[in-house]
Amino acid sequence: MATCKKLINDPNDVETEFIDGLMETYPTLQYLDGYPKVKVVFRADVYPGPPYDKVAVISGGGSGHEPAHAGFVGEGMLTAAICGDVFASPTVDAILAGIRAVTGPMGCLLIIKNYTGDRLNFGLAAEQAKFEGYKVESVIVEDDCSIYPRPEIVGRRGLAGTILVHKVAGAAAAAGLSLAEVAAEARYASQNVGTMGVALKTCTLPGRILRERLGPSEMELGLGIHGEPGGKVTNILPVDEVVSHLLKQILSKETDYLPITRGSSVVLMVNGLGGTPLMELMIAAGKAVPQLVLDHGLAVDRVYTGSFMTSLDMEGLSISIMRSDPSILQLLDAETKAPYWPVGVSGDRPPAKIPAPIPPSPSANIVEPQSQPLKLTEQGRLLELAIVAAANALIHLTDTLNEWDSKVGDGDCGSTMLKGAKQILEDIKNYPLNNAAETVGEIGSTIGKSMGGTSGIIYSILCKAACLQLKTSTDPVVTSKQWAEALAAAIAAVSKYGGARAGDRTLLDALIPALSSLEERLNSGDDPATAFLVSSQAALDGAESTKQMRAKAGRTLYVSQEFQTSVPDPGAYATAAWYRAAAIAIKDKCKSI
Amino acid sequence: MATCKKLINDPNDVETEFIDGLMETYPTLQYLDGYPKVKVVFRADVYPGPPYDKVAVISGGGSGHEPAHAGFVGEGMLTAAICGDVFASPTVDAILAGIRAVTGPMGCLLIIKNYTGDRLNFGLAAEQAKFEGYKVESVIVEDDCSIYPRPEIVGRRGLAGTILVHKVAGAAAAAGLSLAEVAAEARYASQNVGTMGVALKTCTLPGRILRERLGPSEMELGLGIHGEPGGKVTNILPVDEVVSHLLKQILSKETDYLPITRGSSVVLMVNGLGGTPLMELMIAAGKAVPQLVLDHGLAVDRVYTGSFMTSLDMEGLSISIMRSDPSILQLLDAETKAPYWPVGVSGDRPPAKIPAPIPPSPSANIVEPQSQPLKLTEQGRLLELAIVAAANALIHLTDTLNEWDSKVGDGDCGSTMLKGAKQILEDIKNYPLNNAAETVGEIGSTIGKSMGGTSGIIYSILCKAACLQLKTSTDPVVTSKQWAEALAAAIAAVSKYGGARAGDRTLLDALIPALSSLEERLNSGDDPATAFLVSSQAALDGAESTKQMRAKAGRTLYVSQEFQTSVPDPGAYATAAWYRAAAIAIKDKCKSI
Repeated sequence: MATCKKLINDPNDVETEFIDGLMETYPTLQYLDGYPKVKVVFRADVYPGPPYDKVAVISGGGSGHEPAHAGFVGEGMLTAAICGDVFASPTVDAILAGIRAVTGPMGCLLIIKNYTGDRLNFGLAAEQAKFEGYKVESVIVEDDCSIYPRPEIVGRRGLAGTILVHKVAGAAAAAGLSLAEVAAEARYASQNVGTMGVALKTCTLPGRILRERLGPSEMELGLGIHGEPGGKVTNILPVDEVVSHLLKQILSKETDYLPITRGSSVVLMVNGLGGTPLMELMIAAGKAVPQLVLDHGLAVDRVYTGSFMTSLDMEGLSISIMRSDPSILQLLDAETKAPYWPVGVSGDRPPAKIPAPIPPSPSANIVEPQSQPLKLTEQGRLLELAIVAAANALIHLTDTLNEWDSKVGDGDCGSTMLKGAKQILEDIKNYPLNNAAETVGEIGSTIGKSMGGTSGIIYSILCKAACLQLKTSTDPVVTSKQWAEALAAAIAAVSKYGGARAGDRTLLDALIPALSSLEERLNSGDDPATAFLVSSQAALDGAESTKQMRAKAGRTLYVSQEFQTSVPDPGAYATAAWYRAAAIAIKDKCKSI
Repeated sequence: MATCKKLINDPNDVETEFIDGLMETYPTLQYLDGYPKVKVVFRADVYPGPPYDKVAVISGGGSGHEPAHAGFVGEGMLTAAICGDVFASPTVDAILAGIRAVTGPMGCLLIIKNYTGDRLNFGLAAEQAKFEGYKVESVIVEDDCSIYPRPEIVGRRGLAGTILVHKVAGAAAAAGLSLAEVAAEARYASQNVGTMGVALKTCTLPGRILRERLGPSEMELGLGIHGEPGGKVTNILPVDEVVSHLLKQILSKETDYLPITRGSSVVLMVNGLGGTPLMELMIAAGKAVPQLVLDHGLAVDRVYTGSFMTSLDMEGLSISIMRSDPSILQLLDAETKAPYWPVGVSGDRPPAKIPAPIPPSPSANIVEPQSQPLKLTEQGRLLELAIVAAANALIHLTDTLNEWDSKVGDGDCGSTMLKGAKQILEDIKNYPLNNAAETVGEIGSTIGKSMGGTSGIIYSILCKAACLQLKTSTDPVVTSKQWAEALAAAIAAVSKYGGARAGDRTLLDALIPALSSLEERLNSGDDPATAFLVSSQAALDGAESTKQMRAKAGRTLYVSQEFQTSVPDPGAYATAAWYRAAAIAIKDKCKSI
């Protein structure tokens, strides 16, 4: 059985190499020269230097909970974090070194999670530091609400609620409070926070064999942040119900863990355990808030959602609830430079967020409903003939296009074109045909609502861009030069958004030669109808030439297989075909005039 | 085969429920009332309200990349994010709604990742918006460096480098630049950033069957953020080598993706793909920086490490390198309120971070090396007798304690005590026996360095706390009342840090009755030696009484099984035994005086 896959080097170095990366990322953090035994991260502005003039707030514990604890070091939160090996308490020497580095005359507060190793090692370091003359206070966090009924013996663990205690203590210290006051704030916070977790997959230690105790449809409630077994294994439930269960247990009147009653205000923390995507954490947060308000009668002052106290790659989350009041909120909202304290959460939440209305289309307000004019101008009549001819050409080609497309794509090119062509013949009675620019725009709208798929969007873009170009003139009669400019603008837009170029087997392989030919014929003095006709032959030739080009499987922009094909690109051919049909119709009509 | 485990409700609602959670978490964000088709997140201060007076920066794409893109909405970064379904481009209508909501007279810039769907949908929305009179520019990001050799056709995907483009554009817009200028900055940034990824496990879509294409020891290089297959599957390598491979390909002279040469300055982004713990990302960052400097001759101006553009729960990371210069750095460093832009990275990095020296022990400087005084006082002589008697009692009990401990713990209680006792008999020649306080402190140090394990720490704490209490008096002769106070302080410290109380089967079950008895006897006027002797019997009785108490398996503070035992707690018994032996020695000596 292989060890679990991790992006690491030596499993024995993960803790120090984590700190190395943290040092490269954050210029404001510093560490002590004591690897591997002493792993202490602290504020670079505090040590070395003159003795720190505020209460130092120090925490730490085993590694594997990143960003906790080192990621919460920064002005306004932790002064130092002492890191142990993965899931192992740091040594007394490491803790002492951290205390000595950052503790000035105001003293230091140790925030300790309730685990035997942490309590004892931090405890001995505290006694030793006092012995050396430092002022030291400590607060033990035991926010675990998973034990039911409430045990009369010790046993509640320190979980993600510790992060909220860090923040409260750090803000109190930054405000210049005394050690006794900072400790009192931290103690108050720790007594008002409760946490419970759920996991879908337990964590795997670096270098260890993967042994998953949860089955493929199981989840575990109340487990610890080191993978300690939880209270209950059940079949996986919708997160809505999971959240409901966690909240009920944290706020249980029977266990009475927290001094929270209906009408209280609280803050909520939804904490990812390492392997859970932010999407799922946010879904849980979005469900927890209404449940707190409606089912539990609480006001929710702040919501902190993210991965704060993880367990390596454990999949799951924990929920923490802390009773809040204006003084706690002030400390939680106070600025901090700690890299992983969430940004943008401070400040009052609206009691209920009503989504903003979708803004109306401005054009809907200014453009009259279109309809075909009672009397067509000469150009309007030509336009109508051309549109009808083009649409019929596509209808006629449906099966051929589908057949060719089945050799290079998903085989629906003809059917897609058919949908658009039919709808155009339907909508044409409402087109303002005497205004060519608006008519081209309307064709784009018809295509947009009827054709669907990639082709629908590409043709919409083509028409919209041509329309915009045509509209740059105010004269309702469009010159052939302006038509050529509109074609150029359309090609540019399709190329820009579609990302294709000549030779990629797209409709551009028809349109680009058509444009060159059109410009050339117009420049050499051909009459417009003839110039269009010649140009449309160039489009057909261009579409035919796509037979020689390699096709990309799937017709996407991803990296993909390419292969030889014996058929022209159906999209290019369709484009050439409708262009050709329109040009012939115009030429015929002009001859007859 | 079961669907993959996720903390969700209905797989069809994950995108809107994610936005719901985001709304609960961040008061500064707002969304449009257009679920499920229109999923648009934007700055609450921009819409509804008077037209926005700066260039709006809009991005988006498929969901499943959280925190991208909605998590980067905020002053100084994105004005709005348009969210599609998981891994599917948002609709033209949704994009248009977003454009209309946040675009004022300065116009908007669309930042689009190079995928067909995104290009076309954003493209058509852009054309439609222009049609409606908005000023719209767009920039396409294609930072993928995994395709080798450089393809002459389109096909480079937009990856995590897009986040850096968002930041540059957002800062330029916040500075009040014109649309053309903001677009130029974004375009410049996009042309100077390259990205390549590696994965150990591909992502699983909500509600879909889990199908992992990578074997238990395989990894894949160059894959896409939707799980598209990458360039190469290999056996998993140490992350050091993985990083080296990614950097070489991104900076390859052969593909020449980036205008970066030796001597250039760059910024580095190490981006987690969703399921990778921060620890591993930091390890990669810690390796990438020295490689960039030493192997590639580059200066690294900033390092951004975190999960910015994820692929649901994919395990892996991507590395992005962007050429930097003072103007780009100013934009990257500019303040933003976007919740997920990393905090604490701005500002110049030290070229090399030297760890700070471990601070020396202050006591080492002020306390003379201890040694036994040439002539012992009466109390010093008594203390020596008591220490030797106590140590010998423990040595004598070694096997009994081990045997009892094997029934309730790991069976080494006697051996652990033996280590401490032997070392005390060794060190006693250096104890300043005429100073009882210092001597107790020294015993704590001897235990700390020799006993190890939990017991070693508990006894160290006991001695340090007693020493601190004894030191509150300056008189070298310690009264029996002061000894009782020292015992009380020791019990308080052990209880505080150890977290145990009377009845938990610990040494406190011996010491607490001993203290009560001692105080009682002293109050009723017994001579000190007699009072100690009586108190020591109370300690023994207390230790014996632990037979009746339940033992907790593993002797930890975790939730654990409890069971009945027929032996006294070995720790409590050992404590009672040395206390008893010391008391008898003192009583004997006092009688003989």
